[in-house]
Amino acid sequence: MKSVAAGTPAQRQVLVRTHEHATVFCCEPVEVETSTAPEFVDITEQVMSVVAASGVRFGQATVYSTHTTAAVKINENEPLLLQDMARAIEYASPCNGDYHHNDFSRRTVNLDDDECPNGHAHCQHLLMSTSETIPIIDGELQLGRWQRVFLVELDRPRTREFVLQAIGE
Amino acid sequence: MKSVAAGTPAQRQVLVRTHEHATVFCCEPVEVETSTAPEFVDITEQVMSVVAASGVRFGQATVYSTHTTAAVKINENEPLLLQDMARAIEYASPCNGDYHHNDFSRRTVNLDDDECPNGHAHCQHLLMSTSETIPIIDGELQLGRWQRVFLVELDRPRTREFVLQAIGE
Amino acid sequence: MKSVAAGTPAQRQVLVRTHEHATVFCCEPVEVETSTAPEFVDITEQVMSVVAASGVRFGQATVYSTHTTAAVKINENEPLLLQDMARAIEYASPCNGDYHHNDFSRRTVNLDDDECPNGHAHCQHLLMSTSETIPIIDGELQLGRWQRVFLVELDRPRTREFVLQAIGE
Repeated sequence: MKSVAAGTPAQRQVLVRTHEHATVFCCEPVEVETSTAPEFVDITEQVMSVVAASGVRFGQATVYSTHTTAAVKINENEPLLLQDMARAIEYASPCNGDYHHNDFSRRTVNLDDDECPNGHAHCQHLLMSTSETIPIIDGELQLGRWQRVFLVELDRPRTREFVLQAIGE
Repeated sequence: MKSVAAGTPAQRQVLVRTHEHATVFCCEPVEVETSTAPEFVDITEQVMSVVAASGVRFGQATVYSTHTTAAVKINENEPLLLQDMARAIEYASPCNGDYHHNDFSRRTVNLDDDECPNGHAHCQHLLMSTSETIPIIDGELQLGRWQRVFLVELDRPRTREFVLQAIGE
Repeated sequence: MKSVAAGTPAQRQVLVRTHEHATVFCCEPVEVETSTAPEFVDITEQVMSVVAASGVRFGQATVYSTHTTAAVKINENEPLLLQDMARAIEYASPCNGDYHHNDFSRRTVNLDDDECPNGHAHCQHLLMSTSETIPIIDGELQLGRWQRVFLVELDRPRTREFVLQAIGE
């Protein structure tokens, strides 16, 4: 960002403040396949590659899940830990618990032809977020040493989508 | 976004990069009335209408709760599910549990004249977030098929405020 | 934001749209010392001072933890309440629980020389977020009356870092 005097000398009193690098709003939907639930799918590489493609050097990336039974979580990708976190999620809202949402005889709205009982997945989602925002400095996502970005499948295996947005200059 | 050569020919080496559509930072406080607790108040229409009013075509919307006992959550608006999620919240930190925060004989700070015991509401808030950020593409919030935005009342019925910010071009 | 005609009269048909106040992407890593776990370290003053230094008048601040066992949470700073929330966190995933992540005989990755058992801290982190985004209006963070920003230590005392990003004009 700098200021330059534009136009003829007579016009120089009008300072035109210019962006050396204009603000970019880059938005990319990305699909991932899940294979079980709960499942932590590491999407860090996909996030990094959209940030690189966006050309954003200074700004931030927002990772957004478009689902109500798949969340965004940043944590460590250590296989035994993923088992621990899956157990904590299951403990908070057990899959075989009793959920009004699963009583299709009483449900009157939002019923698909292939509707499956997934009350636990919605309640487990309470634990996590739909979006997380990560700073970008000098083109690098500011993930800490152990941080990885996950799309967390809470329901059942399927194709899931997250939206990655890079904003910056 | 494009680049134009500004000024006289002698000045043309200075490239002035311009925004066709300037960056907008639109911020709007919105009030909602709550009627019980826990209560999921669907604020999706209010969020959409602020985004429309902002004129932002590409960017993102941040929904922010200004309260410590009311959270922002994105999930499905199915009445039986809202009962399930309310029960999961109550199970995590029961309303009639034992909270130091409710012992007004020991509290020395942050006491209002009409202070009510609400330790459970603060602890339930641990489950959820204060902010969520949603991408906007071509003027449309990128909410998935079942996603709705909720302000979640955890304390007692009252007037609550959230701030909606639309950023983009 | 306004439009000015740049260059010589012949060039006046090219409208150069300028920002009176250009978009700023300010990013600042901030260190804090923690002394126990779980611990809510109030970082509100540090957040406010980075926002002030950024010069952003209208925009938003994102608070980002670079750690997998330290989270960002916005809630009330009342000492008895912090005890309640610490207890709720400990109740959700007890420190002395059984975690696969703590079985160093089976762990094959991500092992430091001074590795400590901290499975509980990762699982407690499920309750909270890595980032929160707060609107800025007229240079003021839009924190509600009781809202304070915390970095939440879940593991053990050490130096922790969060990144504060102010975006706006």
